[in-house]
Amino acid sequence: MKIRQLFDYDTWTYTYLLWDEATKEAAVIDSVLEQVERDTQHIQELGLNVKYLLETHIHADHITGAGPIRKRTKGKIVVHRNSGSECADILADEGDSFKLGEQEIKVLHTPGHTNTDITYLIEGAAFTGDTLFVRDCGRTDFQLGSNEDMYHSLTEKLFTLPEDTLVFPAHDYKGFSQSTIGEEKQFNSRVGNGKSFKDFSTIMDGLNLPNPKRLDISVPGNLKCGDLDD
Amino acid sequence: MKIRQLFDYDTWTYTYLLWDEATKEAAVIDSVLEQVERDTQHIQELGLNVKYLLETHIHADHITGAGPIRKRTKGKIVVHRNSGSECADILADEGDSFKLGEQEIKVLHTPGHTNTDITYLIEGAAFTGDTLFVRDCGRTDFQLGSNEDMYHSLTEKLFTLPEDTLVFPAHDYKGFSQSTIGEEKQFNSRVGNGKSFKDFSTIMDGLNLPNPKRLDISVPGNLKCGDLDD
Repeated sequence: MKIRQLFDYDTWTYTYLLWDEATKEAAVIDSVLEQVERDTQHIQELGLNVKYLLETHIHADHITGAGPIRKRTKGKIVVHRNSGSECADILADEGDSFKLGEQEIKVLHTPGHTNTDITYLIEGAAFTGDTLFVRDCGRTDFQLGSNEDMYHSLTEKLFTLPEDTLVFPAHDYKGFSQSTIGEEKQFNSRVGNGKSFKDFSTIMDGLNLPNPKRLDISVPGNLKCGDLDD
Repeated sequence: MKIRQLFDYDTWTYTYLLWDEATKEAAVIDSVLEQVERDTQHIQELGLNVKYLLETHIHADHITGAGPIRKRTKGKIVVHRNSGSECADILADEGDSFKLGEQEIKVLHTPGHTNTDITYLIEGAAFTGDTLFVRDCGRTDFQLGSNEDMYHSLTEKLFTLPEDTLVFPAHDYKGFSQSTIGEEKQFNSRVGNGKSFKDFSTIMDGLNLPNPKRLDISVPGNLKCGDLDD
């Protein structure tokens, strides 16, 4: 599977294009509304046939570009079933999978940041959304986030993947672009090196982060799949 | 060769770590002074033995972190010989190469943005500095830049590499992280699709870009390899 990482500078969001080189069947993970022109031009130049628009969760910090891209590509929007999304084409859950040519993208439910988090797995790489960041993890203090769920998703699900699995997060705030499961097991600041749930929970409860600036418009916008004019 | 891309948000600069998995011998391409702590911690966590600190050119928009990283790793600083750098360990030119384990990094002189530009080649990937950007190229209007040299470097040198060669630029301003030679031959806005030198030159002469904000401190700082206190 070919992977291309794209960055939205204003919201520190990573969008990913995945495609099967043989058939050019493609998926877009976590597009950003303001980048739809860039992304659709890139899709066209690469000659890709977008089959799936995969969302790792209902975002609170930006509005997805999935709806507008669907109109131009006929790709199907995939969101976790807990979202109750009425604009998505597929409400996915653990164990579901999607094919690009002969290659498979598998769904792992990894809640904790919200209750809608999906990690998309391909051979050798995990697209971990706001669950696992490089040396960090997503916040757990709104949108049905939960320290218990996050700790379980990180330590019992993601950290049981092969250690050389590449980690591609939905955001980074320090300039990292990727990591591996092995590195995160060892060096993740929140749960690495065998940190206990109690220590993890103390860190998370002490973060005192301000609400995302775009929270009020992002969640409703994402429940419309970014089709704000419809 | 393993490749890891790092981003400096303030100057839109990509830094690269390259390493040979078998021996952990490593190189850093285009470090940024303000990111030395991040990068040296990452190097340490990955267990890398830095042998080379490779500069693609004498930068005008940021100060390199090569000098400070050299003090902590014993890596040798490599700059093109046209720079006349007195702080570099190796003044390189076309045809030179550097080994990490059994793997080789080759030097291609690709002037045009400055007269000191190097593209570093490994198998399957080119680190093109400010010569080739994704769909774009570096400016040619100072530091002995030249439209003639840039056009020659792009069309006669880089575009003769295999089409599936990955392109990793020193900067991006739209959120792209990589490309391929084949894509750039076709879609590069400055020289793609067989654009003539005359048309290229008209584009470059009409850019009217302001000088980089950090020009006055960057060039002298880089001629000290970022060791500003020495």
